[in-house]
Amino acid sequence: MSSSFPSAYEEQLQAAKLFIEANDHFLVVSHLNPDGDAISSTLAMGCLLRCLGKSYVTANEGPIPDKFAFLPECGSIVDLSQLSSHPDRFAKAIAVDCADRERIGQTQQLFAADCALLNIDHHVTNTRFGEVNVVRSDAAATVEMIYELARYCNVPIDLELANCVYTGLLTDTGGFRYANTTPLVMRIAAELLDLGVQGNALAQQTLETMSPAQIGLLQRALASLAFSADKRIAWVAVTAEQLAETGAANEDTDGLVNYARNIEGVDVGLLFKQKSEREVKVSLRSSDHADVSGIAQAFGGGGHARAAGCSIYASLPEAIEQVVRKVGTALS
Amino acid sequence: MSSSFPSAYEEQLQAAKLFIEANDHFLVVSHLNPDGDAISSTLAMGCLLRCLGKSYVTANEGPIPDKFAFLPECGSIVDLSQLSSHPDRFAKAIAVDCADRERIGQTQQLFAADCALLNIDHHVTNTRFGEVNVVRSDAAATVEMIYELARYCNVPIDLELANCVYTGLLTDTGGFRYANTTPLVMRIAAELLDLGVQGNALAQQTLETMSPAQIGLLQRALASLAFSADKRIAWVAVTAEQLAETGAANEDTDGLVNYARNIEGVDVGLLFKQKSEREVKVSLRSSDHADVSGIAQAFGGGGHARAAGCSIYASLPEAIEQVVRKVGTALS
Repeated sequence: MSSSFPSAYEEQLQAAKLFIEANDHFLVVSHLNPDGDAISSTLAMGCLLRCLGKSYVTANEGPIPDKFAFLPECGSIVDLSQLSSHPDRFAKAIAVDCADRERIGQTQQLFAADCALLNIDHHVTNTRFGEVNVVRSDAAATVEMIYELARYCNVPIDLELANCVYTGLLTDTGGFRYANTTPLVMRIAAELLDLGVQGNALAQQTLETMSPAQIGLLQRALASLAFSADKRIAWVAVTAEQLAETGAANEDTDGLVNYARNIEGVDVGLLFKQKSEREVKVSLRSSDHADVSGIAQAFGGGGHARAAGCSIYASLPEAIEQVVRKVGTALS
Repeated sequence: MSSSFPSAYEEQLQAAKLFIEANDHFLVVSHLNPDGDAISSTLAMGCLLRCLGKSYVTANEGPIPDKFAFLPECGSIVDLSQLSSHPDRFAKAIAVDCADRERIGQTQQLFAADCALLNIDHHVTNTRFGEVNVVRSDAAATVEMIYELARYCNVPIDLELANCVYTGLLTDTGGFRYANTTPLVMRIAAELLDLGVQGNALAQQTLETMSPAQIGLLQRALASLAFSADKRIAWVAVTAEQLAETGAANEDTDGLVNYARNIEGVDVGLLFKQKSEREVKVSLRSSDHADVSGIAQAFGGGGHARAAGCSIYASLPEAIEQVVRKVGTALS
C-alpha cells in the first residue's frame, strides 16, 4: 500500500532519491525546539542515508527533550554548543519537518554558501524553500514521508529506522488519537510492529513518562482548577514562581490545558501561564460547541477554532477575570 | 488479512455461524461491571445479529459507565432494574467477553432452563462454558473477534458496527498503547477508519474525557503525591472521605496509580485507596526493574509482576508505612 503513490508525489520522491544518489555527504537538520517528529525524522533520515552508503551529520539547535535521548544516535546530533567549532561546511543539506527556512535556526551556520537543500515536510504552510521539495500536507508526520522515501528507495527497514518512524507517528498523532490518524498511519504502524517495534515501550517512553517537573506542575495546575458558574468553562493556572520552583521547561506546560478542556460538560478549557508580574500567556481549547480563535484575536492573539492562544498584559487574577468573562459572553 | 484464519479458529467461527443461522431469537450478555470491550462487544453482536435478520435482546447487570452512553443502542441494554419484570426467557444466549459463567451475573435470570450458550471471549482463563466456544486469547479485545465473526459471516460492516469495534479496541488497548496492540489490531483499525470511523472523536469520548468526580479525585490524589528518599517509589493516596465527597465510582480510581508509576526514575508506583478506617486497598505498578507480585502476596494479595494488589487492614498512614517499607526492601 505504501509502494504506490499519486504521480505528483512520486515525482517528488524520485527527485529526492536522485538528490541523495547524486551526492555523498549530507547535513540533516530539523526545526529548533524539536518535537518527537523533528527528532525522529532527523534520525530516520540518518538511517536511510547510512543504508544507502552515504555519510552524514545530524544537527539541531535544540534543546532536545530528555525523553528522546533513548533513540539510538540521538546523542550524536550536533547541538548549539558544538556548532561554532564544527569543522564541516555542507554543500548538501536535508531539512526535515521545517515549514520554512527560518525554522532551521542556527544550524544553518553549517551550510556552505552554495548549499543545496532537500526539504521534506508535512506542514500545510511549507514554503518550498528547497532546491528539491517533498511536501505532503496530509501526512500525519514528516517521519511518515521518510518511511515512504525509504520504501521508494528500496531501503530495508531495520529496527532502528522502524523505531524512529513509530516514535514520530506516536508523538505527532498523540498516540494515534488526533484527527490526523489516517488509515495509512495505522497500516504503517502495523508494518512497523511486524518488524519488531515494541509499541508499548515506545508509547510509555514518549507519551506516558512524566518528568518530576511535569508532575509537579500538573499537581499545582490541578490544585488551581476552577469553573465558571455554569461549569461550561474550566481553567487551570500556573504562576511564574511555580514554573521556577518545579524547574519546568517550556514544553512541560503543553498538555495542562487539556485537563481543563477534557472535563465532561466543559466547552472551553483555559490555561493561564504567568510569564512575569504583568504578562500571562493564555491557551484556549474548545470542544465542538465553541470557536476560541475569535476570543484569542480579541486579545491580540490567534489560532484555530479549537486551539488558540494570546498574551494578556495584566496580573494573573486580572487576566483570568478578563478572559473568562470574554469566553462566557462568547458562549452565551 | 482478516479473512484467512488458522483452521482451529476457523472451525470455531464456523460453529458460531451455524449457531446463529440455526436460531432466530437471542439474548446477548456480557460481564457485570462492564468495561468498554464488554459494552462494545454486546452492541457489536447486536449489529451482527440484526444484519443477519435475527431478533435479539441485550442485557447487562451493570452499572454501565456514562461515557459509553453515546454508543447507539447502549440505552436499550436491559439493566438490573428491568430484569425481574422482563417477559422473555431465552433458549439461546450469546455471552461476550466473559471468562466464566459466573461473570455473566444476574442477567442469567433471563436464561431458559435449557438455554444453549455461545461463548465468545479473549481471556486466557476462559473456561469454555458454552455449548459453542469461540476463544482466542491472543485477541486484544473480544470485539476484535466479533469483527472477525462478522467478516466470516459476510456481514457488511456498517458505521454503527465499525464504531463499536473501534471503541472496544481503543479501550482494551489503552488507545493502542498496551502490549496487546498487535499488527492485526492496527490493520483492523485502519479498515474501520476507511469505513468512516472518527477515531479522534471516539478516543476523546472514551479515553480523554474525565467526569467531574474523576478530575476531583485526580486533583486530590496528586496533592498527596510522595516519594521514598531515593525517589524510586512514588505513591498517591485517596481517603474514604475524598472518595465520598467527589462522588467517585469504583472505576474512577483506575488510572490514578499510573501517575505515580509513570514518573521518570520511579520503579514502583502505588495507590492507597482507603475503604474504611481500618481497610486500605493498595494497587502496585512497576517498571521493568521490579516484580510487585511477591510484595502483594506477602500482604495476602496477588497479581502479576508489573501490576498487583492487596488489602491492608490498618489506618491509611500505617498502610503507607508498611507497604513502602516492604517495597523499599524488595528494591534494595
